[in-house]
Amino acid sequence: MANRILSLSNALVSNPTSDVVIDGKAYNTETEPKQVLLRERANASFDVRELTHYLNGGPENTAITERIMTSIERDPLFHNDDFYDLSKDQLRAQTFARVAALSRYIDPEKQALTNQRFSIVGIADTSVVTRAGVHFGLFLRSIRTNGTDEQYKYWVNQGATTLKRFYGCFGMTEMGHGSNVQGLETTATFDPETDEFVIDTPHLGATKWWIGGAAHSATHSVVFARLISNGKDYGTKPFVVQLRSIPDFSLQPGVAIGDIGKKMGRDGIDNGWIQFTHVRIPRSNLLQRYVKVDAKGNVTQPPAAQQLGYAALVDGRVTMVNDSFQSSKRFLTIALRYAAVRRQFGSDPKDKGETRILDYPHHQRRLLPRLALTYAMNAAAFSVSELQTEAANALKNVDVTDKAAFKAAIDESKELFSVSAGLKAFTTWATSATIDECRQACGGHGYSGYSGFGQGYNDWVVMCTWEGDNNVLTLSTGRSLIQSNLAIRKRNANSTTKIPNAIAYLVRSEQLKGVKLGGRSLTDPKVLVEAWESIAASTINHATDAYERELAKNGGNVELAFETVSQRRFEAATVHTKLYLVASFVNRIEATATPAVKSILTDLAVLLGLWLLEADLAKFLQCGFITTEQSETVSDLVDSYNAKIRTQAIPLTDAFNLSDYFINSGLGNYDGDVYNHYFSRVVRRSADGSTSSNKKDARPEYFERITSKFLFRED
Amino acid sequence: MANRILSLSNALVSNPTSDVVIDGKAYNTETEPKQVLLRERANASFDVRELTHYLNGGPENTAITERIMTSIERDPLFHNDDFYDLSKDQLRAQTFARVAALSRYIDPEKQALTNQRFSIVGIADTSVVTRAGVHFGLFLRSIRTNGTDEQYKYWVNQGATTLKRFYGCFGMTEMGHGSNVQGLETTATFDPETDEFVIDTPHLGATKWWIGGAAHSATHSVVFARLISNGKDYGTKPFVVQLRSIPDFSLQPGVAIGDIGKKMGRDGIDNGWIQFTHVRIPRSNLLQRYVKVDAKGNVTQPPAAQQLGYAALVDGRVTMVNDSFQSSKRFLTIALRYAAVRRQFGSDPKDKGETRILDYPHHQRRLLPRLALTYAMNAAAFSVSELQTEAANALKNVDVTDKAAFKAAIDESKELFSVSAGLKAFTTWATSATIDECRQACGGHGYSGYSGFGQGYNDWVVMCTWEGDNNVLTLSTGRSLIQSNLAIRKRNANSTTKIPNAIAYLVRSEQLKGVKLGGRSLTDPKVLVEAWESIAASTINHATDAYERELAKNGGNVELAFETVSQRRFEAATVHTKLYLVASFVNRIEATATPAVKSILTDLAVLLGLWLLEADLAKFLQCGFITTEQSETVSDLVDSYNAKIRTQAIPLTDAFNLSDYFINSGLGNYDGDVYNHYFSRVVRRSADGSTSSNKKDARPEYFERITSKFLFRED
Repeated sequence: MANRILSLSNALVSNPTSDVVIDGKAYNTETEPKQVLLRERANASFDVRELTHYLNGGPENTAITERIMTSIERDPLFHNDDFYDLSKDQLRAQTFARVAALSRYIDPEKQALTNQRFSIVGIADTSVVTRAGVHFGLFLRSIRTNGTDEQYKYWVNQGATTLKRFYGCFGMTEMGHGSNVQGLETTATFDPETDEFVIDTPHLGATKWWIGGAAHSATHSVVFARLISNGKDYGTKPFVVQLRSIPDFSLQPGVAIGDIGKKMGRDGIDNGWIQFTHVRIPRSNLLQRYVKVDAKGNVTQPPAAQQLGYAALVDGRVTMVNDSFQSSKRFLTIALRYAAVRRQFGSDPKDKGETRILDYPHHQRRLLPRLALTYAMNAAAFSVSELQTEAANALKNVDVTDKAAFKAAIDESKELFSVSAGLKAFTTWATSATIDECRQACGGHGYSGYSGFGQGYNDWVVMCTWEGDNNVLTLSTGRSLIQSNLAIRKRNANSTTKIPNAIAYLVRSEQLKGVKLGGRSLTDPKVLVEAWESIAASTINHATDAYERELAKNGGNVELAFETVSQRRFEAATVHTKLYLVASFVNRIEATATPAVKSILTDLAVLLGLWLLEADLAKFLQCGFITTEQSETVSDLVDSYNAKIRTQAIPLTDAFNLSDYFINSGLGNYDGDVYNHYFSRVVRRSADGSTSSNKKDARPEYFERITSKFLFRED
Repeated sequence: MANRILSLSNALVSNPTSDVVIDGKAYNTETEPKQVLLRERANASFDVRELTHYLNGGPENTAITERIMTSIERDPLFHNDDFYDLSKDQLRAQTFARVAALSRYIDPEKQALTNQRFSIVGIADTSVVTRAGVHFGLFLRSIRTNGTDEQYKYWVNQGATTLKRFYGCFGMTEMGHGSNVQGLETTATFDPETDEFVIDTPHLGATKWWIGGAAHSATHSVVFARLISNGKDYGTKPFVVQLRSIPDFSLQPGVAIGDIGKKMGRDGIDNGWIQFTHVRIPRSNLLQRYVKVDAKGNVTQPPAAQQLGYAALVDGRVTMVNDSFQSSKRFLTIALRYAAVRRQFGSDPKDKGETRILDYPHHQRRLLPRLALTYAMNAAAFSVSELQTEAANALKNVDVTDKAAFKAAIDESKELFSVSAGLKAFTTWATSATIDECRQACGGHGYSGYSGFGQGYNDWVVMCTWEGDNNVLTLSTGRSLIQSNLAIRKRNANSTTKIPNAIAYLVRSEQLKGVKLGGRSLTDPKVLVEAWESIAASTINHATDAYERELAKNGGNVELAFETVSQRRFEAATVHTKLYLVASFVNRIEATATPAVKSILTDLAVLLGLWLLEADLAKFLQCGFITTEQSETVSDLVDSYNAKIRTQAIPLTDAFNLSDYFINSGLGNYDGDVYNHYFSRVVRRSADGSTSSNKKDARPEYFERITSKFLFRED
């Protein structure tokens, strides 16, 4: 017997696939990974801490970020060990408790700090941020921007900033209308007899739908409804409507609310539907900064009041560029750490055993350009956020009755609208694709609930739909690019009107048309930016020409012409946004990167520019920027930059500075000890009774009821 | 008061967005959709029933399909009204009950009928099919193909075909090894003293992982382990190991099993992990068709025995091409019906009110080429299935000791391996993208659990990873294309060796190099097939050249050369697979379409060919098949074919012949009454108590515990 055990151990030791020698010591599949990550980190060519500061916008911001992270991570209420096993109902309850905790940190006067905390909490639990954001972002902001100063004060006194005896939701979307807010069908009919508005849901399609906070939390809602006075329809306006009585929480008369139920993700958010049956509210509940109704039902509103009313949504879009960065960095950290330690197939002459999958050129292609994109999204988030601050300042104190001043402020916002729409769409889509690619890059284990990818994807992808559907937004950016380009074409050469920075290159369209790569190198960041300017200008000009052709053909029907060229609009917006990403990354490196990190960041920028160029190669060939022969080398250049970045991949994920708490994945811990962490998560979940299956019984709970009756049947 | 109500109703009637007039009658958002689908169907230009027969492969198959569908739909056990609200544990139990019901229909001798039933059940519930498939597909098939006839008979006598006192699982994948089966680390060491094998898990990384059926169901497993005899490692072989005792279901000594827990999807499958600690099995439990071990531990095996051992996996890949068709057709039906009735923005001169979203050219682009692709996948599924039958017949009675005959049979299988690997990867990826696009095309409602997309996506995407990771498979097809191309290049011009059909065009490489579009039309299916042949030949030849350059450069290291050109391998395989799809669609139309449906099918084939060409435009420009000027027209051609197909979109989904039961979505019912169906699903789910939230109380269940304590706090 002893003999037999001995011979079996010998057999085990001789198993060639389980032995890998690192620095003279033998490791197997289980014991090797930690050693591998140590070696990866020893090869860092740059200062990791310095790169973290670059990403945060300076060491002071790193300190603030880390303080916020620590406060969340330490709070037992935010512990996420069981996160992937919670039911919808458990998530709903936990999320509200977290919203309550989070709300104590929020000072509406310190928006930047609130945004920062939300952005960080969102990495660990997206539902909490959305559920709190519905009140603090959508509800409160629309009271502030659409209400008069007195109205804002009034609702603050009711508890709107402290969440005391008050919780707001945002009643915009209806079953039949999402993107087209002007088409909403809920009515608010003024009744001069009682000085009230009557809010009504005329039919099923007008039911308010997806309203976050409505199902379980809200006492009040901003309701978007058609203002009807003296038989005339004035379009969609915001009204404050009380939904539940305080404090017993029963529904107000005429208010019907239900739970939307199961969603693809974000089950922590209590989305609900609301139907109003002739619900009466005082006239003063119309938010009256931009529209006024007097006691007789006379309505006055300034021109372009509509646009201003939806300004709250633009903030969300800007935030989502940064969210894209935050989310991408988490999932890439998991997939890259896993890829650095996972071995499969092949033979690496330096090590015994199989090849680590990150050493395969194809695997590098799947992940490393997306790592470069993530760094670029960080730069773009800073850039669009500056744009937002400028636009907000311009609008802040504008006198809406001064036509000229009002138009100037609106114009100032247009660049922000166009840039943020295109970026929101591109970055949220790119992040969906990144999460999916990262999951697949972890093979079967990526499909495990405890890798975090499934829940992460399901929670994320709604970002592509809400606050402006990505397709609608991209087409709208395309439309605005054609309009701007037409204006630039008609512009007098001596004009001094300011052209927004983001489209300034369109003024140089003629010059860019002749630009060729020639003998220059595609790995020069300046050449890459020019390449993207040239292709963006060419695509937008082609779209503009096509639009004008259609317009001439159809007798001046603007809407029809824009629809007919929708594919060109879509392409124009996408290429323009890619240019914005590449250029803002290159500019930010130039402006803020210290010598210790400049070289690695430049490599990332070049990789991104090349990778995007490769995907749009046909356009570069069509406009003659590169020749067919030059085009044949692009893929090899991408490969070579991937090989370069590969050596720095682990330090580049370390610079993201996410602790294991925020990573929350069996596959992505800092120490790289993948198999042990993953196994202990799986065993813990199936053993502690929080899932009923298995536990310490090899028979399922339905054994007598189903299994035994079938497998051990008599007939 | 009466007056007030009257004036309110007037206001309502005058709301411009709620009135749409069809044939003189006014409808609103809620009442219109049913009318719209009636009009869409009246416009069908082809015989819908005839097209259903085409898709099924003749009216006889339609009859069989419909009988199977009816038998499932009528069975109360298969009712899916609550499908999207079930917990993991509920799904596990329901799935096993359904497996038991399904198994009564299975006759292992009637494989085609079994496949057909599985394929149909899989549209409604993917987990059931997988859970049953693990036993009937993987376990049973590996006993039959790897075991001798006597071994197969033995296990059948134990209950392996009737599932009586027996349930099998497939113990291949380990924590540390998925794709590389040769690298598995579980050991099976022969002990001549007792004439037994000792199965052992040497360390954590060798734990069997993802084993469907292991957690709750299996009494036995085929375990893939390294055969070690007299100190020598013979590589991975299959052994039958008993896991649980019968009938008490407790674990056998030395067997440890746990539940894998939460997954991204398919929670109805009881995936488990297994660790063996010196588990002893009789020598006869080694499946010995291709490998034999005598009582002294002498091992004999024919050459290439390895390849034959994994043949079971190829069947799965072939099936998954058809699964891709089945799944895509379901989700496209939902998204297209919704798009036909949903209005948003714009203005259609024919109707009052907003534009139906399917009338937007951009929306057509998102869905209609994917509809064409779905029809093409149907044709490709038939084609690869024929290939499979031929290859199986060749292998069936081969004498493994006859070297020449054995090699011929293996060669016959190579085409099947290469084609099915590329197709499995392409079609399962395409289907993931289709489900995602369909979800986004339904806007916010696509994110509702009751639309079916979320669960559908989560259940589907594992198809891209299991039974051959899509990236690994695509690269392997690329490798085999380069190898075949090298053989063709070296081939004597007078050789009579048969070239497999799928790569026959490579023989014409030189001729295809010179082919240009010239004055011909890209809307001619024959021209499109030639275009794709030309581009595939060019891509494969470029890849082959690059491989030979690398080989020369690195001194003949084949593995290194293949890795270095992996991006080119990937491209070669993808383009080759696109050609296969376009060509098999065109061929099938030619061979089987009746005049009543040939025209619409041809339009679909052209749309597909053009849409794929547009995405690969750079390649067509690089090889000179089209000029820059010609390339500018491709997008407009795609647009015009989309506009053509749009008029037939609803009849084209009707031809898929899926009842509301199989659609199982609030948005996709046959009658188009979207808002009512969707609303009633949501209300029913939140009212019947199967979800604890809301019910008939406006307060959540955690109101006292969390909400009230926070909102109505005293401090």
